[in-house]
Formats: sequence, C-alpha cells, structure tokens
Amino acid sequence: MITSTSNQQMKNLTLLMKKAKARNEQGVFVAEGRKMFLEAPVEWVKQVYVSESFYGTCTQGNMQDCMESCTPKHGEEKLNRKVLERLNETGYEIVSDNVFKSVSDTQTPQGILCVIKKPEYALEELIKGEQTHLLILESIQDPGNLGTMVRTGEGAGITGVIMNQTTVDLFNPKTIRSTMGSIYRVPFFITKDLAGTISSLKEQQVNVYAAHLKGTLSYDEPDYKKKTAFLIGNEGNGLSDEIADLADTYIKIPMQGQVESLNAAISASLLMYETGRQRRH
Amino acid sequence: MITSTSNQQMKNLTLLMKKAKARNEQGVFVAEGRKMFLEAPVEWVKQVYVSESFYGTCTQGNMQDCMESCTPKHGEEKLNRKVLERLNETGYEIVSDNVFKSVSDTQTPQGILCVIKKPEYALEELIKGEQTHLLILESIQDPGNLGTMVRTGEGAGITGVIMNQTTVDLFNPKTIRSTMGSIYRVPFFITKDLAGTISSLKEQQVNVYAAHLKGTLSYDEPDYKKKTAFLIGNEGNGLSDEIADLADTYIKIPMQGQVESLNAAISASLLMYETGRQRRH
Repeated sequence: MITSTSNQQMKNLTLLMKKAKARNEQGVFVAEGRKMFLEAPVEWVKQVYVSESFYGTCTQGNMQDCMESCTPKHGEEKLNRKVLERLNETGYEIVSDNVFKSVSDTQTPQGILCVIKKPEYALEELIKGEQTHLLILESIQDPGNLGTMVRTGEGAGITGVIMNQTTVDLFNPKTIRSTMGSIYRVPFFITKDLAGTISSLKEQQVNVYAAHLKGTLSYDEPDYKKKTAFLIGNEGNGLSDEIADLADTYIKIPMQGQVESLNAAISASLLMYETGRQRRH
Repeated sequence: MITSTSNQQMKNLTLLMKKAKARNEQGVFVAEGRKMFLEAPVEWVKQVYVSESFYGTCTQGNMQDCMESCTPKHGEEKLNRKVLERLNETGYEIVSDNVFKSVSDTQTPQGILCVIKKPEYALEELIKGEQTHLLILESIQDPGNLGTMVRTGEGAGITGVIMNQTTVDLFNPKTIRSTMGSIYRVPFFITKDLAGTISSLKEQQVNVYAAHLKGTLSYDEPDYKKKTAFLIGNEGNGLSDEIADLADTYIKIPMQGQVESLNAAISASLLMYETGRQRRH
C-alpha cells in the first residue's frame, strides 16, 4: 500500500494532473471515478490506484444478485463488483485514504484514479463519408465547456472534434471529467495549422459553417445531411477573422431579448443536435 | 475613498456575496463588472463601488467620438464613458484597488461592483397566454448551469423560470455572472411547493413536458406552439418521481454512442430552442 505523498508514483500522478507538458511527454492522462475507469478500453489502462476504503467497500459488499427489486444500495454494490472484476483484469495499487485525497482532483473522491494511454487519431479517421459531422474549435479556454462539447457531440452523433493548439488541453482533469467518458469514444485531431486543416476538409467537400454575428441564415435553415463541420470560437472573442473567412456559410442562432451571444458549449450543442434532428428525418 | 476591508460597507458586501441568507434578509444581490452595471435597471441599483484605478481609466480616457474606424481601444473608451455617465446617475463610492480585489469574486476584477435590489414576480407574470414558455427546475445544484439556463432561456424566448427552494440560489455571484445580464430581464418564481405550482399551471392549460429516460417521443415531435413548460431535474439524480409524475408527456433527447444523459443546461437549451424554432415557422 502506498502511504506517502512523496512516493514516486504519487508525485508523478500529481504532475500528470497539473501539467499538460507532463501528459504530452508521457503520452498519458489521468481519469478519476468509477464510471471513467469502467468505460476505459482495457488496453488503454496503464495504472490504477484505489483508495484503501473504496477497495474495502468493493471487496466487502454483500454481492447478491438482485433482479426486479434492485434497490439503489444493490445498484451501488453491482457497480462496485464490476469495478472489482475490472481491477483484477487491469491490476492496481492500493493507496491510503489520506494520500488518495491529497492527490485527487475532486472534493469528494470516489476512490479510484487511473492513468490512461492517450489515444491518437489521424485526420482521415474523423471523416466518415456522407456521415461526416465535425466540430472545429478555435481557442476554447474553459475545460468544462470543452468536455461538455465532446459529451454532447457523442450524443448528437459527431464523427470527430478538431481543435487548434491554443484550445485548452483536452486531457485536463476537469475536461476529462466533463466528457463523462466520451473522451474514450469521440475521435479528435489537434492541429498546428487550423486554417490548413479547414482548407483540406473543404477540398474533401465538407461544408463548413460558422456561427457568426454576420450570419443572416438561421441555424436550422441549411441542409446538414451532407458532410458538415461547425466552427466554434473562443468564449470571449469568438472566431478570429482568419478562421471565420474560411467558412462556406455564416449562420446565426436567433436570440430574443437583449442576449448578445450564447455560451460556446450551448451554441455548439444546438448546431450538432440540429444536424442530428435533420439526419433522423 | 474606502481603504480598509474592515469598512462596514465592505464587510456587508462580502457577506452578500457569500451568504444567500444575507441576500434574502436584505432583499439585494451583488453584480460585478461593467456589463452587469450598465444593463441593471437604474431604479434597482442601490450602491455602486468602483476601484480607484478603474475610476481613473474612466475619467482620464481620451473621449473622442469615433465613427467608422472605431478601434477596439476606442470601443473600450466608449464603454467606459457610458459607465461614467451612469455612475453620475446612480452615485458611487471609490474603493482602493487592494480592498476592491479582496472583495471581488473574480480573479481579474473589472473594477465595478454594485448592490442591486432583488426583483420579485408573481407566478401570473410568467404566464403570457399562448406565448407561455416556461422552464421548471427541480433542485439544480450548479450555479453556472442555472445562470446559463437563464441566459439561453432569454435568447430562446422563454416567459419565465420556476424553481423549487432546493435549487441553488439564483443570486449566487457565479449564477449572476453566468446569466450575462439576463437576470434583469427573465421573470422567475421560486416556489415552496413545486408540485402545487405545476398543478396550477396545468389547470391553466400549460402543457408540461419532462425530459425523462422513460420518454419515447423525441423532443422535436410535440407541438410546442401552445403553452409549454419543460421540467428539468437535478444534475446527478434527474427529476424526483413525484415531480416527473406530474408531466403530461415524457420526451427523450436521442443520444448516440454510449451517452447516458446530457448536462442539464444543454438539455434545457435544446428543448427551449426547439420551441423557439417551431414558433418561428
């Protein structure tokens, strides 16, 4: 059992949670909580740390099968049993509660932290023929916004997220948490040259839309059944002129009252779900 | 000029930012930043505090009128001039920069804080005939989610927000900031008896929809051109059975991949904007 915060593994875990540079160098990120552990593809899991008390809960639970009359308590036990089965597959280290708490990024840690291999995708993997549905992000700064966009994007059926290098790190613990597991399933591409990447998408007949103050077409008017990509800009400043100029079409989200703009994750969600809506009909 | 954090007004300001109880007792809340000050109805503004350096910027700016070639710098100056004009209308106190920073709720304070009278609305003021479009919140816990729902709601054209008393305080500084000024314009009603309030809405022919796992009807299928209200539940647990049972119709937001739920503010936004979309057509 690890009982000291000066343990080399604990020090590295803290570093991985705080520094994008360390995550990039080691090619891994940290995911916290039962759901994030259970949904991680087994072959991506490199290390798992469980707190002493959570491990106790998993092994000492009353592991009865329950059918129709499953109580919330039984639900918890079933979930913990799944965790235990998975732990035996991946291997794990037990960490004393105090040390675990000091390493955790959350106020009420669930008692499980894992180091996961970062996935990598080529741009081509985000292009899925006529189903292509992309979110392109320029310099999004809020980790919660980014994670929420990935989560909602999976729900809406996007085929990938593209972002420039000044977008907040996708593997920031707060972003990871906000994705609620979608980070494992939504392909992404981080580009040094956002303009070049957009141009290459346009050459592949992807229709690029920008939510923009200059837009006159309402967001529900274009036909998104073809290959579609949406440009979403920074929370404070919107899209840069250079990137906005690359859009094929400016669209607007109608706003009543005195609202001047919507939150970036909300705008992105409305556009992605409008695409989903059209494609279902 | 106020130069000490033990000044009685500064102590009260801190109390008002931290404690819902103090806000309730005094019937006021605190709004921070230029935009929140400029959009506040003048008659609601009770006290205004400006930092020494921000006040200097407002009075010393080069106040030229600029027409077509307005630079961002001129834009800033025009905004600051508006602030100055408004300050002369409302009255203000200057606060030393250090004291201002210690009182402010933000990391980079804009230099203006104001104490605003809390608005109050009767339930009837949220009902606008066939235009009625309500968001009904049960125990929302995240201040940012709540503020974002109010902001997006104004944009989508809702006629009000109803919430139970275990929803996070609407006048929490983080909620206020997330509303981006919509708090001044969206009528709201906080109810001790959410079930009773919903029943009273149903007696007035408001159609009540709940986004619910039991829903089979996709959220874009019902006709929202009639009086409409959406029930949105707590981030972790969803709607309680008691409240969900009062809905006329369960709806679902289709989710692809392995997504089990969406963020509460995202779900609410999709429903409100779908209503807006239908009403425009």
